[in-house]
Amino acid sequence: MKKILKKRGKKAGLSPGSLVHIGEATGKAAAIEVVEYDQAKLVSLRIDSKETQLAIRKVPSVTWINVSGISDIALMQRLGESFSLHPLVLEDIVNTDQRPKVEDNGSYIFLVLKFISPTSSAVATEQISILFGENWLISFQEGLDGDPFAVIRERLKNEQGRLRSSGADYLAYALMDVIVDNYFLVLEEIADRIEDLEEELMGTPTPQTLAGIYRLKRELLLLHRSVWPLREVVSSLIRRDSPLVGEFSVTYLRDLYDHTIQVVETTETLRDMLSGMLDIYLSTVSNRMNGIMKVLTIIATIFMPLTFIAGLYGMNFKHMPELELEWGYPAVLIFMLLIVIGMCIFIRRKRWL
Amino acid sequence: MKKILKKRGKKAGLSPGSLVHIGEATGKAAAIEVVEYDQAKLVSLRIDSKETQLAIRKVPSVTWINVSGISDIALMQRLGESFSLHPLVLEDIVNTDQRPKVEDNGSYIFLVLKFISPTSSAVATEQISILFGENWLISFQEGLDGDPFAVIRERLKNEQGRLRSSGADYLAYALMDVIVDNYFLVLEEIADRIEDLEEELMGTPTPQTLAGIYRLKRELLLLHRSVWPLREVVSSLIRRDSPLVGEFSVTYLRDLYDHTIQVVETTETLRDMLSGMLDIYLSTVSNRMNGIMKVLTIIATIFMPLTFIAGLYGMNFKHMPELELEWGYPAVLIFMLLIVIGMCIFIRRKRWL
Amino acid sequence: MKKILKKRGKKAGLSPGSLVHIGEATGKAAAIEVVEYDQAKLVSLRIDSKETQLAIRKVPSVTWINVSGISDIALMQRLGESFSLHPLVLEDIVNTDQRPKVEDNGSYIFLVLKFISPTSSAVATEQISILFGENWLISFQEGLDGDPFAVIRERLKNEQGRLRSSGADYLAYALMDVIVDNYFLVLEEIADRIEDLEEELMGTPTPQTLAGIYRLKRELLLLHRSVWPLREVVSSLIRRDSPLVGEFSVTYLRDLYDHTIQVVETTETLRDMLSGMLDIYLSTVSNRMNGIMKVLTIIATIFMPLTFIAGLYGMNFKHMPELELEWGYPAVLIFMLLIVIGMCIFIRRKRWL
Amino acid sequence: MKKILKKRGKKAGLSPGSLVHIGEATGKAAAIEVVEYDQAKLVSLRIDSKETQLAIRKVPSVTWINVSGISDIALMQRLGESFSLHPLVLEDIVNTDQRPKVEDNGSYIFLVLKFISPTSSAVATEQISILFGENWLISFQEGLDGDPFAVIRERLKNEQGRLRSSGADYLAYALMDVIVDNYFLVLEEIADRIEDLEEELMGTPTPQTLAGIYRLKRELLLLHRSVWPLREVVSSLIRRDSPLVGEFSVTYLRDLYDHTIQVVETTETLRDMLSGMLDIYLSTVSNRMNGIMKVLTIIATIFMPLTFIAGLYGMNFKHMPELELEWGYPAVLIFMLLIVIGMCIFIRRKRWL
Amino acid sequence: MKKILKKRGKKAGLSPGSLVHIGEATGKAAAIEVVEYDQAKLVSLRIDSKETQLAIRKVPSVTWINVSGISDIALMQRLGESFSLHPLVLEDIVNTDQRPKVEDNGSYIFLVLKFISPTSSAVATEQISILFGENWLISFQEGLDGDPFAVIRERLKNEQGRLRSSGADYLAYALMDVIVDNYFLVLEEIADRIEDLEEELMGTPTPQTLAGIYRLKRELLLLHRSVWPLREVVSSLIRRDSPLVGEFSVTYLRDLYDHTIQVVETTETLRDMLSGMLDIYLSTVSNRMNGIMKVLTIIATIFMPLTFIAGLYGMNFKHMPELELEWGYPAVLIFMLLIVIGMCIFIRRKRWL
Repeated sequence: MKKILKKRGKKAGLSPGSLVHIGEATGKAAAIEVVEYDQAKLVSLRIDSKETQLAIRKVPSVTWINVSGISDIALMQRLGESFSLHPLVLEDIVNTDQRPKVEDNGSYIFLVLKFISPTSSAVATEQISILFGENWLISFQEGLDGDPFAVIRERLKNEQGRLRSSGADYLAYALMDVIVDNYFLVLEEIADRIEDLEEELMGTPTPQTLAGIYRLKRELLLLHRSVWPLREVVSSLIRRDSPLVGEFSVTYLRDLYDHTIQVVETTETLRDMLSGMLDIYLSTVSNRMNGIMKVLTIIATIFMPLTFIAGLYGMNFKHMPELELEWGYPAVLIFMLLIVIGMCIFIRRKRWL
Repeated sequence: MKKILKKRGKKAGLSPGSLVHIGEATGKAAAIEVVEYDQAKLVSLRIDSKETQLAIRKVPSVTWINVSGISDIALMQRLGESFSLHPLVLEDIVNTDQRPKVEDNGSYIFLVLKFISPTSSAVATEQISILFGENWLISFQEGLDGDPFAVIRERLKNEQGRLRSSGADYLAYALMDVIVDNYFLVLEEIADRIEDLEEELMGTPTPQTLAGIYRLKRELLLLHRSVWPLREVVSSLIRRDSPLVGEFSVTYLRDLYDHTIQVVETTETLRDMLSGMLDIYLSTVSNRMNGIMKVLTIIATIFMPLTFIAGLYGMNFKHMPELELEWGYPAVLIFMLLIVIGMCIFIRRKRWL
Repeated sequence: MKKILKKRGKKAGLSPGSLVHIGEATGKAAAIEVVEYDQAKLVSLRIDSKETQLAIRKVPSVTWINVSGISDIALMQRLGESFSLHPLVLEDIVNTDQRPKVEDNGSYIFLVLKFISPTSSAVATEQISILFGENWLISFQEGLDGDPFAVIRERLKNEQGRLRSSGADYLAYALMDVIVDNYFLVLEEIADRIEDLEEELMGTPTPQTLAGIYRLKRELLLLHRSVWPLREVVSSLIRRDSPLVGEFSVTYLRDLYDHTIQVVETTETLRDMLSGMLDIYLSTVSNRMNGIMKVLTIIATIFMPLTFIAGLYGMNFKHMPELELEWGYPAVLIFMLLIVIGMCIFIRRKRWL
Repeated sequence: MKKILKKRGKKAGLSPGSLVHIGEATGKAAAIEVVEYDQAKLVSLRIDSKETQLAIRKVPSVTWINVSGISDIALMQRLGESFSLHPLVLEDIVNTDQRPKVEDNGSYIFLVLKFISPTSSAVATEQISILFGENWLISFQEGLDGDPFAVIRERLKNEQGRLRSSGADYLAYALMDVIVDNYFLVLEEIADRIEDLEEELMGTPTPQTLAGIYRLKRELLLLHRSVWPLREVVSSLIRRDSPLVGEFSVTYLRDLYDHTIQVVETTETLRDMLSGMLDIYLSTVSNRMNGIMKVLTIIATIFMPLTFIAGLYGMNFKHMPELELEWGYPAVLIFMLLIVIGMCIFIRRKRWL
Repeated sequence: MKKILKKRGKKAGLSPGSLVHIGEATGKAAAIEVVEYDQAKLVSLRIDSKETQLAIRKVPSVTWINVSGISDIALMQRLGESFSLHPLVLEDIVNTDQRPKVEDNGSYIFLVLKFISPTSSAVATEQISILFGENWLISFQEGLDGDPFAVIRERLKNEQGRLRSSGADYLAYALMDVIVDNYFLVLEEIADRIEDLEEELMGTPTPQTLAGIYRLKRELLLLHRSVWPLREVVSSLIRRDSPLVGEFSVTYLRDLYDHTIQVVETTETLRDMLSGMLDIYLSTVSNRMNGIMKVLTIIATIFMPLTFIAGLYGMNFKHMPELELEWGYPAVLIFMLLIVIGMCIFIRRKRWL
C-alpha cells in the first residue's frame, strides 16, 4: 500500500530554507527541457543538467522550462541562483511532502500541485511545482511516472491552438487542467472498482471484498489531502488581482474551478458510498452467521431428542417392561417420527426454512 | 444500478473547449423546435436539424428554441457558431457530467441543470442547459426520457397565463420550476419506498430489506450531487443584479429557492432516516441470532444431561447394582424428569422463554 | 407512523400560484372568526364562510381574523381577492408541505409556521400561516387538531393584559409563542419517553425498546425539519427593520428567539442521546448473546466428555477387562466426577461464572 | 440519573412574563445577604426575606445582594418591583431551564449562567442569574447545593485583594470565574472516571463498564448544553462596548474566555474518547464471544467423532466381527487416540489455541 | 497511558492571577540561561536561579533568556517582578494545562505553545511559553524532556546563519518552527505504527491490534488539542500589525502556517484512517467467528445423525428384526456412509468449504 506520509525526519532541526529532498527519487539523471514558442515559431531543446548556465528569460515569446529530477540538490541550488528564487520556495520544491498552495511573489506566481494518474505505480504521488512570470514558466517534478505533460507538448505543435497564441498564464492553466483531468481519471477508476465491489457485496462478499473497501477508502483519504487544498489554490488564483493572470485565462480558470469542486464533491460521494458498503458488509456477515446458526440449531433440535430416546432404550436395567413388548421397537420408531414432524412444524413456525 | 460517474475518459488530454459528447446518447436524430409567443400570438415549428441556418433572434416576441439531441456534435458546432457561444459554454452543454451552475455572460445567462423524474429509466439523469437573453431562450438536452417540458408547452397555449405575458426570464423560471417539481416527485417516491422498508423492518426484515436500504441510500447520494449545487444556482440568480432577470421573476425565483432548500433538507432527512434503519436492521439481525441461539442452548441444556444419564446405564459393567433393582428404571425416569424441571426453572429465571 | 412527506404530486406541472390544497383535510366546513379589540373593547363574531364579503380593515382597533379550514379552495380564492394577496402567498397557505418562513411584503408580513402539540394525533402537523399588517392579523390553519389559539382568546379577555394594549405585531408574537411553547411540551414528552427507554435499556431491553428508539429518532428528525427553519424566521423578524414590528415586540421576540435556540439545541441533544442508546442496545444484545453462549459451552464442555466415557463402556466388545472388575463401575463414576471438577476449574479460570 | 429536561409544562399557555418557578426547590426559606464594600470597609448583613423594602443603591461603594431561594415567587415579585426589572428578566430568573445568555439593558447587564460542582447531588444544576450596574450587583440562585460563592466572600475579606479595589464588573467576573473553575473540576472528575473505565476496558470489561460509558456520555451531553452557550456569553461581554464593563475587567474576561474555550474543547475531546471506548467495548465483547465459541467448537470437534465410534460398537447387531476380536477394544482405543491427535493438529493449524 | 487532563483542582477558588504550578515537575533546580547575540558576537552564560537580579534588557543585540523549571514558584514570582509581567501572564506560564494562544501586550507578545517529541516519555507534554519584545525573548518551560531548543543553540553558532542577522521575532519563529517540526516527527511515528497495525489487520489481527488502534486514536485526540489552537496562534501572528513582528519574519511565519495546516490535516487523516481500521477489525472478528461456527456446524451436521443411528441399534428391545440379519451391520455402515456423502454435498452447496 501507498505510504501514508513521506519521511521528513531528516529535515527536523535544520534551519528553514535548507535544501533536503524529501520523497522518492527516480535515481535517473535530471533532465531539463526548454520550449520557446509564440504564434509563429516553436523551438524545443534538451539541456544537459551538469553544465548549463540557465538565464534565458529576456525573449518576447513564451519560454517553458521543464525540470525533471528535483532530487538532484546541486542542480536545484544552481537553478535557484540563476532564477533568484527565495530559499523557502526552493525548499518547497524539493520537499515533496508539501501541501498544494499558491504564492504570489509580485514578479512570479508559485504553485505547488500534486499529480496522480491511474497508471502511476501505487507509491508515486508526484509533486509538481510551477513558477510563472510575465512570459516564462518553469515546472519542476521528479518524473517518477514518466512525463505528465506530454499531451501539452503535443498540443503546442498545433499552430492554430489557443496555447500558441496565449501567454504563460494560459500555459499554467493548461498544465493545471491536465492535472485535474487526471484526478477525474483516477476517480473514474475508483468508481469502477466500487461498482465491482458493489456487485460482490450484493452477491457473495468475501474478506477480499472487505480489504478492497478498506483500500479504496484509504486511497480516497490520501487523495482528499491533495484535492481539498487545490480548490483554494484555483480560487485564490481567480480572486487575486495579479497582472500576471490575464482576464482571458481567468475565464478558463473559472471553468477549472468548477471541475475542482466536482472532483472534491465526487471524492466525498465516493467516500460516503464506501462507508455505506462497509455497513452492508457487516450486515451481510451477520446474516450469513444467522444462516449457519440456523442449520446447526435445526440439526441439534431434531437429533438431540432422538438420540436421547435411543439412549434410553439402550440402558441395561433388568426390569424395563417396554423392551419385552413385541411392538415396542416399532412404537419407538413411530414416536421418533412424530418428534421429527413436531420439530419440523416448530421450525417452520419460526420461519427458519 | 445507476452508474456512479459518466466516463469522461475520452476527454483527458484534449484541449479545453474541445467538443466531445460525454454521457448516454439516444441514437435518434436531433430535433429542434422553435416557439415564438407573446400575449397575442403563439407560433410553433419544428426545424430539420440538417439544413437550417438558425439566427432567428430579432423579433420583439419571446423566442424559445428547444434542442433535443446534444450528442450530434456537428449540429452543436453549427448552433454554437450561429449563436456565437463561448467554446467553454458549448463544451459544458455536450459534457453531461457537468455540475449544476449559473454563468452570467452579460448578454446572456447560462444555466446547467439536472433533470430526474420518477418515471425515467434508472440510468438517465438528463442534463439540461438553458441560455437566455433579452427575449430569447435556448434549452438543450439529449432527450433520453421524452420531453420534460411538455407541461410548459401546454401551459403556453393558455392566453391568460402568466407565461404568455412575461419575458424570457419567466420562461427560464418556469423551466426550472418543472425540474424542481420533479425532484419532489422523486423524493416522494423514495419516501414511499422508505416507508415500505420501515414496515418490513418492524416486521421480518430480510437481506432484500438490506439491499433496498443500500440502494436508496446510494440513490440519495447521487441525487444530493445534483440538488446541492442547484441551491447555489437559484440563490445566485436572485442576488445577481442582471438586467436580464426582472423584479417580477425574482419574486417567483425566491419561491423556487424555498422549494430548493426544502428539496435539500428533505434529502438530508431521508438519508438520516436510512442510516437509522440500517442500525435497526443490524440490531434486528443480532436479536434474531439471539433467538436462534436460545433455542439451541435450551435444547442442549435439557438433552445433554439426559443423554449422559441414559448412556451411563447403558454401560456394560458386570457389577452395577442399580441395574438389578426392580424400581431402578422408573427411578431413573423420575430423576430425568426432575432434571428437566430443574432446567426449565433455570431457563425461566434467565428469561429465555 | 407519521407520514414522512405530504403528497404534492397532484401539483407537479401546474403553473405556479395554482391553488391546490396539499395535506390532510378535516372534512368539516370552514369557520371564520373575527375578533376586534383594543384596550377598551373586545368584539368577537363568527362569520359564515359561504356568504360573507370580507373587507373589514379600516378600524383603529386591532382586527384578528382566524380562518380554520384552508382545504376549502373556493373560500381561500375569495379571501385572497378580498385581501388582495399575492397568488404565491395564497398558494403557500393552502400547500401545507411548506417550509417555515417569513416574507416581508411592505404592507404586510407573511409567516408560515408549524404547530405540533403532544396531544395531537400522530399524523397531524398543522401548518399555520399568519399575515399581519398595521392593525390587523389573519391566521390560517386547517384545524386538524382543534383550536391551537384558545389560550390567546382566553388571555384577550383580560383587560389589563399586555395583549389588549398592544398592536397586531404583539398578537403575532403571542401566537408564535404559543407554537414554541408547544414544541417544549412535545420535547418534554419525548424526553420522558427517552428516560423510560433508558430504564428499559439498563434493565432488560427487548426488541420493543429498539423499535421505541427508532420511533423517537424518526420523530425528532421530522421535528427538526419544522424547528430548524423557525430559528431563521424569528431571527429575521428581529433584524428586519419593518415599521410593522415595533420596538416593544422586538424585546419579546428576542426572548422567543432564545427559546427557539433552546428548542433546536434540545432536539440535537435528544438525538445524540438516542444515538448513544442505540449503541448501548447493540452492545447489550451482544452481551446477552455472550451469556447464552457461555451456558451452552459450559453444558457441552461438561457433558460431552462424560457422555463419551459412558458410551465407551457401553461398547459390546467381548474382551473389555474393565467391565469385569468389581470396582470398575465406581471407578468410572469417580473418574467422571474428577472430569467435572476439572472442567469447573477450567471454566472458573476463564471467568465464565 | 439526572433528568434530561426540567418540566416547564405548567407554563404553557401562560402570558409571557408570568412568574412561575420551573425547577427544583429547596423547600427552605429564601435568604438575602447584602455585602457593601470598597477598599476601606466591608459591611455584610442578612435580611429577612419577609419584611424588607430593598432599595439600597445610592452608595458610592459596591453593593452585592445575593438572593438564595428564587422559588419564593412572592419575594421575587417584590424584588422585581423594588429594582424595577423587566418582567421577562424576572421570568428568566425563576425559570431555571433557561439557556445561558447575556442581555444588555443599558442601565444594567443581565447574565444567566449554570453552576455545576463535582460535589453537587446528581440532580442539581443550579441556575445563577447575575444583574450588575454601575456599582451594584445582584445574584440569584435557588441554593440547591449550598453557597457556590463562599470563596468570593472569603476573598473579599482580604483588604489588599483586587476585588476590594475594583468595581461591580470585576465582581461579576469573579463570580463567573468561580463557575468556570467548577466546570474544570467536574471535567477532571469525568476524566478520572474515563481513565478508570479505560483500565477496565483494557482488562476485563463488564456490562457495568458499558453502563458507565453511557452515563458519562449522557453527562457530557447535558454539560455541553450549559457550556456551549457560555462561550458566547463571555465573548459578547468582551466585544460589547458597555460603559458598565471597564477595560481592566475586559483583560480578565479575555482570560476567562480562554478558559471557556478550553472547557468546550475538553468536553468535545472527552466525548470523542467515550465514543472510541464504546467501539472498543463492542469489539472486546465480540472477541470474547470468539473465545467462547472456540472452546465449544474444540470440545465438539474432539468428542463428537469419539462418541460416534463408541456408539457404533455399542450396537447390538448379532454379526459384528470386530466385537469378537481379542484386540478389538485396544484397537478402537488407539484409533480414538489417533482421531484426538488429528483434531488437535487441525485446531493448531487454525490457530485456535 | 498519558493522563487526559492535568489536575488544576488545587487552583479552584483561588483569586485569578494566583501563582500555582499545575502539571508535572522535574524535581530538579531551575536553570536560567542567557544568550546575547548579534551578527558579530555570541555570548552565553548560565545564571544561578537563587541569587540573580535579572534586568538585562537595554543592549542593542538580541537577548534570549531561557528558563527551565517553572515549578519553582518563588523564582517565577521574582522573574515576574523584574520583567514587570501581568499577573495573568505569569499565571498562564506556570499553569501548564493552558491552551496554546497568543496575546499582544503592546510592548511584548506572549505565546503559549505545546512541545511534544517522539522521544519524550509518554506523560510529558511540555508547555513552552515565549515572551518577546523589541530585541529580547524569554522562553519558559519545565524541562521535563531535556532541552528542546538545543538545535537552535547549535544554529546560533553559525555566524552566516539567518538567526544571527535577524531580530527577536525571527528567533521566536525559529523556536516555533522547532516545535512544529517535532509535531511532524510525532505524526510520522504514529503513521508508522498505523502502517504496522494495517499489516496486522490484513493478516491476523489480535486483541493487541485493537488496543493499539485505541491507543493511537487517543494520542491523536490529545495531540489535536495542542495542534488545533496552534493554527490560530500562527495565523493571528501573521495578521496582527504588531511592530514587533517584522515583514521578513512574516514570510517565514507564512511558511510555518502552511506547515501547521498540514499538521492539522494529517492529524485528521490519521484519525479517519484509524476509524476505518476499527471497522475493519470488527468485520474481521465477525468473519473469523463465521469460520469457527462453520466448523462446529459441519462437525455437528455430520456426526449427530450418525450417532443417532448408532444409538438406535444400541437399543435393547427384544424384537428388533434388523439386529438378527447377517448383513445388518454392513448395511448400517453403508447407510451411514451415504449420510456422510449427502451431508458433504449439502455443505459444499452452502459453500462452507
